[in-house]
Amino acid sequence: MGLLVVGSIALDDIETPLNKVENVLGGSSTYITLAASYFTSPIELIGVVGNDFCKDHIKILENHGIGLTGLQIKTDGKTFHYGCKYGEDCNERETIFTDLNVFENFDPIIPEKFRKSSFVLLGNIAPELQLNVLSQLDSPKLVVCDTMNLWINIARKALIETVEKVDVLVVNDSEAKILSEKDNLFSAAKALQEMGPKIVIIKKGEHGAILFMGEDIFCVPAYPLESIADPTGAGDAFIGGFTGYLHKTKDLSFANIKRAVVYGTVMASFNVQSFSTVGIENLKQIDIDKRYNEFIKMTQFD
Amino acid sequence: MGLLVVGSIALDDIETPLNKVENVLGGSSTYITLAASYFTSPIELIGVVGNDFCKDHIKILENHGIGLTGLQIKTDGKTFHYGCKYGEDCNERETIFTDLNVFENFDPIIPEKFRKSSFVLLGNIAPELQLNVLSQLDSPKLVVCDTMNLWINIARKALIETVEKVDVLVVNDSEAKILSEKDNLFSAAKALQEMGPKIVIIKKGEHGAILFMGEDIFCVPAYPLESIADPTGAGDAFIGGFTGYLHKTKDLSFANIKRAVVYGTVMASFNVQSFSTVGIENLKQIDIDKRYNEFIKMTQFD
Repeated sequence: MGLLVVGSIALDDIETPLNKVENVLGGSSTYITLAASYFTSPIELIGVVGNDFCKDHIKILENHGIGLTGLQIKTDGKTFHYGCKYGEDCNERETIFTDLNVFENFDPIIPEKFRKSSFVLLGNIAPELQLNVLSQLDSPKLVVCDTMNLWINIARKALIETVEKVDVLVVNDSEAKILSEKDNLFSAAKALQEMGPKIVIIKKGEHGAILFMGEDIFCVPAYPLESIADPTGAGDAFIGGFTGYLHKTKDLSFANIKRAVVYGTVMASFNVQSFSTVGIENLKQIDIDKRYNEFIKMTQFD
Repeated sequence: MGLLVVGSIALDDIETPLNKVENVLGGSSTYITLAASYFTSPIELIGVVGNDFCKDHIKILENHGIGLTGLQIKTDGKTFHYGCKYGEDCNERETIFTDLNVFENFDPIIPEKFRKSSFVLLGNIAPELQLNVLSQLDSPKLVVCDTMNLWINIARKALIETVEKVDVLVVNDSEAKILSEKDNLFSAAKALQEMGPKIVIIKKGEHGAILFMGEDIFCVPAYPLESIADPTGAGDAFIGGFTGYLHKTKDLSFANIKRAVVYGTVMASFNVQSFSTVGIENLKQIDIDKRYNEFIKMTQFD
């Protein structure tokens, strides 16, 4: 079975201190599926777009072999439109507007043939939608779940219910602390593991990520970059590369999940080097292999 | 020849949200020599203390085999006394007082027999004093230098002159940026390397450290701790473990310098688990080996 990905699809307006773009391809599942497509297939995308979602965007997804059977195209509305602005510090993102449009009434319907999917990735959408998706599935083997501070704040109960049902939870450091109500990252991870997921991954932006699996811990730095064009989608590219690699290898050992974290880190690094999804649209296998090997050199010792 | 260490020796008053201690052993060269003593000997300490520096403190240093021939004991004054307070965030340190006392007129005299030392560690003291020390030495093989934002701000010219003459510069991330006048850590490291040192190590506190050696980069996370008792001296313990290991092995290859960075990280982690130097006073080789091996497990993949 393929890798099933549910998440948002958006058109983004992004402003950084150096550049500004409008109506570019965005949304959690877009970054996720593109990043995952370098590792595995088939990938099935469940999402919704409006009448303004152009053919070129569809083509980008199709060119990466992403299955769009589960993509709903609503002709009576517009695509989710999101605007944000970054300060000098890439970690500071200000939301300028959030026009949900057709995403407001998104009903994620999993086509019958995908309900037995064994690998499922719940991108960052409302936890009620994530629960809705899970209720349609027939005992998936691995459910990976992303979320964000918004849902922790406004939909805590549903989010906790979701977290109880997933195998891998991916959050950033501040989200880990507010969701677990712990001050320390390691205590937070333990508390989150106790809520359900065997595996918790805490992303720390430019400082890398920490994998918690049972009692084991694995720390990776971010791939060093001299400049970042656009941090949007970094976490999605991470989770896409991570899950794509696991779906390809079907090996859920600690040793292999470590490798998946490194592939996720590599994909996030490509993503932030360009605006929108451009950084992960035209990679070659050799680019990914090369960066993975550089990552080995900069983290491994004997 | 032994490892020559020059730096401050202090009595510290330290307050954290959970505890408060007064007149405890402190100063850069104290942490450095204690940390280094687990790896190598002889270690020769050059420093100055006053008439209030008690025998128990001397004994701690002697018990670690630290040579005190170069320790000046001034009977007409008091030891450098430093007071600081930490906020909830360990990274926020507020200096409460700095009574230089006998340290104000410290004239670091290197005894004749140590002037041919091949491994020299310049702990965090005024760059004029570091230059003074270097002028007394006969072509050392490896000079490792620490500094702090105070010297970058008030003694920039002398510091740059020092940096030109050293092989390894160790600074934290904000110091790297202000000294190099670059915003990005990687650009900052390159600029610092161009100033003189072949090797630059940038410490990132709880986020670990990055080693830059020629074109090569090596990133390590900090050792994960659920709580930190007292961050004072973490950077000194790091540089002590790092240089102690290099002095023991005499191998300046990239592969071995990576190992030294890991040993530095391990020593810093022990240090912050207790107040003052307590965390690095009574370690056993097996404690260090065990943590080094845990570090391998949490950072290495294949």
